[in-house]
Amino acid sequence: MRIELIVVGDEILLGQTRDTNSAYIARRLTAEGLRLERILVVGDNQEHLQKALEASSGHADIVILTGGLGPTSDDVTRPVLADFLGMPLRFRQDLADGILDRFTRRGTRPSPGWESMAHFPAGAEPLPNSQGAAPGIFAQAGARCYYALPGVPTEMQPMFDRDVLPALVRRRSSVFKSCIFKSVGVGESHLEQKIGPAEHFRPATIAFLPSIDQGVTLRLSCGGVSEQDVESVLKRGAEVIESAVRESLYAREEIALEAVVIDYLRRKGLRLSLAESCTGGLIAERLTSVPGASDVFDAGLVTYSNDAKMSLLKVPDSLLTSFGAVSAECAAAMAEGARAVREVDLALSVTGVAGPGGGSPEKPVGLVFIALASAGGTVVERHHFAGGRDSNRRRSALAALSMLYRYLSRKGLPS
Amino acid sequence: MRIELIVVGDEILLGQTRDTNSAYIARRLTAEGLRLERILVVGDNQEHLQKALEASSGHADIVILTGGLGPTSDDVTRPVLADFLGMPLRFRQDLADGILDRFTRRGTRPSPGWESMAHFPAGAEPLPNSQGAAPGIFAQAGARCYYALPGVPTEMQPMFDRDVLPALVRRRSSVFKSCIFKSVGVGESHLEQKIGPAEHFRPATIAFLPSIDQGVTLRLSCGGVSEQDVESVLKRGAEVIESAVRESLYAREEIALEAVVIDYLRRKGLRLSLAESCTGGLIAERLTSVPGASDVFDAGLVTYSNDAKMSLLKVPDSLLTSFGAVSAECAAAMAEGARAVREVDLALSVTGVAGPGGGSPEKPVGLVFIALASAGGTVVERHHFAGGRDSNRRRSALAALSMLYRYLSRKGLPS
Repeated sequence: MRIELIVVGDEILLGQTRDTNSAYIARRLTAEGLRLERILVVGDNQEHLQKALEASSGHADIVILTGGLGPTSDDVTRPVLADFLGMPLRFRQDLADGILDRFTRRGTRPSPGWESMAHFPAGAEPLPNSQGAAPGIFAQAGARCYYALPGVPTEMQPMFDRDVLPALVRRRSSVFKSCIFKSVGVGESHLEQKIGPAEHFRPATIAFLPSIDQGVTLRLSCGGVSEQDVESVLKRGAEVIESAVRESLYAREEIALEAVVIDYLRRKGLRLSLAESCTGGLIAERLTSVPGASDVFDAGLVTYSNDAKMSLLKVPDSLLTSFGAVSAECAAAMAEGARAVREVDLALSVTGVAGPGGGSPEKPVGLVFIALASAGGTVVERHHFAGGRDSNRRRSALAALSMLYRYLSRKGLPS
Repeated sequence: MRIELIVVGDEILLGQTRDTNSAYIARRLTAEGLRLERILVVGDNQEHLQKALEASSGHADIVILTGGLGPTSDDVTRPVLADFLGMPLRFRQDLADGILDRFTRRGTRPSPGWESMAHFPAGAEPLPNSQGAAPGIFAQAGARCYYALPGVPTEMQPMFDRDVLPALVRRRSSVFKSCIFKSVGVGESHLEQKIGPAEHFRPATIAFLPSIDQGVTLRLSCGGVSEQDVESVLKRGAEVIESAVRESLYAREEIALEAVVIDYLRRKGLRLSLAESCTGGLIAERLTSVPGASDVFDAGLVTYSNDAKMSLLKVPDSLLTSFGAVSAECAAAMAEGARAVREVDLALSVTGVAGPGGGSPEKPVGLVFIALASAGGTVVERHHFAGGRDSNRRRSALAALSMLYRYLSRKGLPS
């Protein structure tokens, strides 16, 4: 099954809006073993869209369109698609009622030109839009299917998930399944070594998806004719991967590391504080991005100046003089200080040289110390990252969350 | 001049890597009055790339390609382009020397298959790659130009800026100029009202580019035959815009609000601390993302729990009981507390209900108070945002930075 995507919108060709719909659709299809064969981006231009439809219809079985469904004269997808398919636009009272009803419920006046959204290609099927006014379009021309979705991601995504993806999965003749393994603290090539040759997993395939904020995600996928066969291949492969990467594995589903950490803290009844220097609040920001973080997160102290380290965290002046703010000793004192001052179970600290300035031969840019203080004592890790300021800060935050995760998960993985 | 972009890479069609090159190229072209007419994304597949080149060559004057220039067998751009243009690949000793020299300087072994990168289309011109091993390709076929660039954004961007964009600008027959206005604290539609009808700026055009983290950027652009005419049109337009939006304007160049704020603090010799609740460290993270922030940024206190607000910021228990943590009173006490405890010139605080939980009829999700304490007293702002957790936190951080900016810039704009 050949699937193509046509993205319609001047704002993307002008670089004013980043097209996130393509990546979303690509990711969702891939997770179901389907594959996007080509993406075409065209402007809000009748002739260009017409040509794109001709080009796609030449070899695709499924053509998905995003954008251009709104009520303004820029929105060309509805008339161009109708014309291309030979399905003239007809006014539909049911759609008009639905659109007006939505405006009434929100207490707003209908957008100018709203009636155009109720003019629908004859013979096509509307796709309900739970988040916006413009209905999507499903049309069939011979064996070829067309899906036109809105360009606004919050409208497009639920429509794609509800009305497009399941239909494509049903059309697929074979079975396809995949599972993921989220790991942290071990690089991609090292993971590859641990897991062994990809050939051992055949007919399943392995993909390594590294992220600077979330570690490396492994995806094991397999397609076949029998559900039972595919599942047993995946089960065998998953056992190999799990035992090889157990130490660094933090989730078997799409969940952020910070959410896993918050969940552990909650289940263990532990409260956490942070003492951040070079990460400047990034770890606090990540942990508090998780709804309900307030149950376990007490406070974050972004102690950027030496004075702040001394007065807020009780780091001794003499320690800063002897070892400097970027040192294992200072990291330990920051974590222990935060734990004592905030009277919490756990405190995590980071101090380092993010760059681009501030480096020296002894303390080069990228040198970072991370400490974790608990009732059992304090552990310090030393890292040397090789990137720019932003990358060094993000890698430091990931390393700190990874350290915290490893401490919390000593008794095994989340069930 | 018709410009098309062909993006080559399985990782994009699989949703594993987000294509940021398209947006970068689109934005850079638009800023020079050039326009991308179409984007095609194809996989690492000879036949698909071949078809894409045929399609683009049908109507484009300039074809830009990104990706597929590396040394592995997946990298198809070099051979397919050479074949398409009838320029057979020939080994070039100068390119081989340059590639090997790069590996030697970095003290790493050459990647397997590196020699393929020294096989170059006969008659084409290499584009030096300052950030990676694979040279880019410039080839001319009649009046049509082809530019093949690497897919890694850090390699692609400097190459595009140095070797592609200036050449396209030279080919342009007309003059084009634009200028930008970065503003914060006023919404897009309100800005539009203040500025008046777009027709008044003709032949110049205005674009409004809103960002949840940086406010609204206005771009005034004008094309024409005479440089003098274009400049005088822009000058007149810029005067109108400046006087209409003066209050909310924070920069006339591409610079982040946090960098403008840090610069102001440095020039005024003021030190800042933060007291963040619902933003959870986001404001500290943004300010410390600016190199050199340590000159003026003292500390950030992420006081998530009531206890942390009391003990770290000296917010009175009675105040929390009477008004609650989400109140104008608490915001003011947090800022004043941070200013006193840290003995700094300025302290900024944020407290609110980020959601999705924690709301009530009196204190709904999205209600946020921001306070700024200085020697002159304390000012509190009340906001009610209507988004989800992430959006509410980001809008809160922007509103806080905006408030700080307005305080610092009382005496006019940065020169």
